[in-house]
Amino acid sequence: MDKNLIYTFDKDNEMLLGGIKASELIKKYGSPLYTLNEQVIRNRCELFKNILKEVYPNSIISYASKAFCCKAIYEIMKNYDFACDVVSGGEIATVLKTKFDTSKVYFHGNNKTEKEINLALKNNIFNFIVDNEDELETLEEIISKNKKWENKINIIVRINPGVEAHTHEYVQTSKTDSKFGINLESGEAEKFILKIKENKKLNFLGLHFHIGSQIFDKEPFKLATHKTMLFIAKLKKNYNIDVNIINAGGGYGVWYNNSDADLTDNDYKDFIKVIADEISSCVKKNKLKEPTLVIEPGRTLVAEAGVTLYTVGNIKEIKGVRKYVSLDGGMFENPRVSLYQSVYTPIKAKKETNEIETVTLVGKCCESGDKIINNASLEKLKKGDIVAVLTTGAYHYSMASNYNRNPVPPVVLLNNKKARIIVKGQTYEDLLRYDL
Amino acid sequence: MDKNLIYTFDKDNEMLLGGIKASELIKKYGSPLYTLNEQVIRNRCELFKNILKEVYPNSIISYASKAFCCKAIYEIMKNYDFACDVVSGGEIATVLKTKFDTSKVYFHGNNKTEKEINLALKNNIFNFIVDNEDELETLEEIISKNKKWENKINIIVRINPGVEAHTHEYVQTSKTDSKFGINLESGEAEKFILKIKENKKLNFLGLHFHIGSQIFDKEPFKLATHKTMLFIAKLKKNYNIDVNIINAGGGYGVWYNNSDADLTDNDYKDFIKVIADEISSCVKKNKLKEPTLVIEPGRTLVAEAGVTLYTVGNIKEIKGVRKYVSLDGGMFENPRVSLYQSVYTPIKAKKETNEIETVTLVGKCCESGDKIINNASLEKLKKGDIVAVLTTGAYHYSMASNYNRNPVPPVVLLNNKKARIIVKGQTYEDLLRYDL
Repeated sequence: MDKNLIYTFDKDNEMLLGGIKASELIKKYGSPLYTLNEQVIRNRCELFKNILKEVYPNSIISYASKAFCCKAIYEIMKNYDFACDVVSGGEIATVLKTKFDTSKVYFHGNNKTEKEINLALKNNIFNFIVDNEDELETLEEIISKNKKWENKINIIVRINPGVEAHTHEYVQTSKTDSKFGINLESGEAEKFILKIKENKKLNFLGLHFHIGSQIFDKEPFKLATHKTMLFIAKLKKNYNIDVNIINAGGGYGVWYNNSDADLTDNDYKDFIKVIADEISSCVKKNKLKEPTLVIEPGRTLVAEAGVTLYTVGNIKEIKGVRKYVSLDGGMFENPRVSLYQSVYTPIKAKKETNEIETVTLVGKCCESGDKIINNASLEKLKKGDIVAVLTTGAYHYSMASNYNRNPVPPVVLLNNKKARIIVKGQTYEDLLRYDL
Repeated sequence: MDKNLIYTFDKDNEMLLGGIKASELIKKYGSPLYTLNEQVIRNRCELFKNILKEVYPNSIISYASKAFCCKAIYEIMKNYDFACDVVSGGEIATVLKTKFDTSKVYFHGNNKTEKEINLALKNNIFNFIVDNEDELETLEEIISKNKKWENKINIIVRINPGVEAHTHEYVQTSKTDSKFGINLESGEAEKFILKIKENKKLNFLGLHFHIGSQIFDKEPFKLATHKTMLFIAKLKKNYNIDVNIINAGGGYGVWYNNSDADLTDNDYKDFIKVIADEISSCVKKNKLKEPTLVIEPGRTLVAEAGVTLYTVGNIKEIKGVRKYVSLDGGMFENPRVSLYQSVYTPIKAKKETNEIETVTLVGKCCESGDKIINNASLEKLKKGDIVAVLTTGAYHYSMASNYNRNPVPPVVLLNNKKARIIVKGQTYEDLLRYDL
């Protein structure tokens, strides 16, 4: 993505985010501060909308909420007529507060609790991405106990096509040994779908797969779609079963640092195109009804819109070893470094000296693993300077904790020189709210 | 520790925690549920109190709050006249709510913010474990601006003795390349202390080191204490500087699984004894004034008192590969598995079949890394069963997040068949509290 969309420097060499000085944002909203650039999110939404319109109009874009779940984000997604994925009662409770069209809400998860399933049903959320046999049994029991839900529940079966995408093991979800989905190649998925079709009170809609996160290579998408379409053709040929939805998940990579490819609009189009082409060619070859394609971008829509601002605190140089620069955040507001060894890109928010240094940016938590960026190269820092860390819009606020009893910072949405808080920062009183 | 203190089974083969059926706790307080056994915490507090009384009476036990910070825990620590460590404004705000004697509060951290330092000072917290030169400068500036704080601030210098304890890299805090402390061997610590002594408005109290966490070997404690005592003797000899406090940190290992040593009371005594013996022998040899020994157990006091209860949800067997058993928790309430690859011990809360199986216990988060225990051996589980996971009293509640928008479970304190909520569980409304 063009970095000028995310930040610029003004004539005084001060960093602007959404047209506003980083220093003014810190002054007004405190430090550290999560910022999200609304226009960057909207550009990505437009991009995916246009790509789908062009390459596969019979489609639905479903925002994967877990990347960043709050009311304001759903409001943006509603603007584009997007659907959304939810993975818990908490995400359901949030989306319901926004009057989102519940026919566009898809409920995911390997272990939806009965309480969560009932919360969904009572609020007209009927699209279930069913992950396993036990979940199907729970739904069948609910229907047998309560006729109200007969012929209401739409089932999309999460299959596991056994495709390994090259990414961090934790976010690689579609290898055979996975807690998610029903194995395609062993024949279990076939048996499972036949079982669903036997129950006339459930609506079988289609299939879902998700091969992982932070994927830069089109091939695994092509392969997974191909395998799924062969399966769809088989279901039609052998059992005359129509599959109305093929949900190809998300997982398109975003840029965190210069060792990541900085994907262009065309690259994202290519991801979708390989999926669409595989579907179309199989539909044609096997004379199938064209299924609706669902894609589930989460990180891709919001990650690069996020910039976290920090203030430099104590600096310690261990001669001949390393210079540590402490920031006022850490693993409580960005757990991805300690969890996944993620590498971020920092920028000093004021150009002053052009003197580049290699330092290790650490947080304020009492733990050695509390690093923000190891061996970062950026303009020399001094106490009080502001540092901007890029690509923090996904899995930052949503994974934040109160570790070391630190409050979670606020989230400010920026657009065209305007800023507004979309998630309030926590106070010490908030931390004490639960203590008895 | 004797596991009978933590759980027993009654005549109906049901697990009892603090004398109460696990199934009753789940029914009353919901699932998942953090439990803490008050008697187990108190036993450990007594143990350390007695050890110190015997081997080094001139001592202070300071609870390292970050293991588990809430008001109820401070109340227990107050009972034993313990001091406590705090590492943030949030921990300060919490301890202040308990009317803790602030002369017994020690403020730690590599990057205390000015706001936090001022919060401490205004509330008569004057004991600073100073981590680096920049922090010292901040304190000097505060004193020069505000005469009120002259001769009030007590400084204990965190030194880095360069001792590597064999533990997870993230929690290994005293190797030379560390964000914590001032290097002893390079001579920097010496210069630093001379600088503090120059400022007559600061009270230099002593030295602190912390060599890491989950340490089972006494040798690194002996070595670190030895190096620190040599330094103390040198300060006396060369500069006539008295060191009144030697704070030897914490880090004594606890049992998580059968590959960990299950330390006895005597083992814990041995840790303290090697430290005490090193101090005493150096004091004698160099005719020093005996310093007060401070130790900082955190995990050691609370970890084994904690048992998390879960309810089994969906079970999926991938033939020839693995059986996945989903629990209703996960990385939001226990991030230590994905962070540190920690290995826990699970127990089915009702003995029914004696049929042992190897399964992988996973959580409900939409992420492959969301595991609770990989390849766990326990009695065969079915949907609805309760599983108890041991040793979850430290760094569980304190590290919990709302990942996947899951609410943090409540914490129930158990003692002699009585249970009381000490930390309320979050509701969906709590999750929405910050959304604008």
